[in-house]
Amino acid sequence: MKVGVLYSGGKDSSLIAVILKRLGFDVELCTVNFGVYDSYIPAKNSAKSLGFNHKVLKMDFEILNNATDIIIEDDFPNNGIDFIHKKVIDNIANDYPIVADGTRRDDKTPKLNKNQIRSLEDRKNIQYINLDSFGYKSIKTMVSSIFELTHEKSNKDNNSDYEVEIRMLIDEKDGKSEDIFPEHYQTRVIGYK
Amino acid sequence: MKVGVLYSGGKDSSLIAVILKRLGFDVELCTVNFGVYDSYIPAKNSAKSLGFNHKVLKMDFEILNNATDIIIEDDFPNNGIDFIHKKVIDNIANDYPIVADGTRRDDKTPKLNKNQIRSLEDRKNIQYINLDSFGYKSIKTMVSSIFELTHEKSNKDNNSDYEVEIRMLIDEKDGKSEDIFPEHYQTRVIGYK
Repeated sequence: MKVGVLYSGGKDSSLIAVILKRLGFDVELCTVNFGVYDSYIPAKNSAKSLGFNHKVLKMDFEILNNATDIIIEDDFPNNGIDFIHKKVIDNIANDYPIVADGTRRDDKTPKLNKNQIRSLEDRKNIQYINLDSFGYKSIKTMVSSIFELTHEKSNKDNNSDYEVEIRMLIDEKDGKSEDIFPEHYQTRVIGYK
Repeated sequence: MKVGVLYSGGKDSSLIAVILKRLGFDVELCTVNFGVYDSYIPAKNSAKSLGFNHKVLKMDFEILNNATDIIIEDDFPNNGIDFIHKKVIDNIANDYPIVADGTRRDDKTPKLNKNQIRSLEDRKNIQYINLDSFGYKSIKTMVSSIFELTHEKSNKDNNSDYEVEIRMLIDEKDGKSEDIFPEHYQTRVIGYK
């Protein structure tokens, strides 16, 4: 059965993809893009290194624009990122009978709670799967045994998180993205061990 | 890494065992027994049919006795079964660095909520894994593609749920177990497809 996995090239979305493949699902990785910057390229490369099919899902610029306005208004990224994530999951659910993402038991944002999952599955008549079975320690154990990783300072060309296009749009609007998204390190999957 | 999977021979506990095996964990299946009846035998047979190591974990009769008193008092099984399940998980956590069960996103009882999971992992310094990643439809899809199943009216010799020993103890005490546990059908795993 076909599964669309929301994919960033990071360890969590790579792990859910591998779990579902090993369980016999026909996995396709999907990375969204809002037309601001080709930020899907790192994810595309990670997908290739793992041997998965990869699709770029073009989404309406207005969703990114609204999320960016929320983030500038809040001076804090969580609500805007959650807004994008829900729109993205809804969009992937139009194309696949099963939709998955790499959100974990310990994650706060972005994350669908149980009621949101039930609503999504009912509205779209799909199945939704994530990493809620696992805590961060178990995920760390699995990731380090399965994947080859890079660990670098995050920049616009080494990750495919929503953050890349959001930052560029914030900088176009008021140029303060580095206050809202502080510098951090980025782990990306580059193959199997 | 070694994982102790709480095992009944049913489809959910068999599924989490197979998932963890495919992810590279060293899986051991554990079925508890309180010394009232050898109800672990169906689980032992299912484990064998799937090629897993299986252990019977002898537990204190007083836990079953207390649970049975709760169930008779409530005239309803849920609280008593939840009481047993938490004691059992705690017990398995003494023997394994990772503990897993087959509880699912949609399950109500027995089930550890997020706070109980966090408390368990901290108190025992272990990792806990369940089937929370999946809804019932996804589990149905996976189970039917992976396992050969039997589907029979439940009786004391075709399942290894807590219910078997609880019923026998209730019947010793006041003989009304069939009012509290109505007749139902039982699915048991008997091999791979």
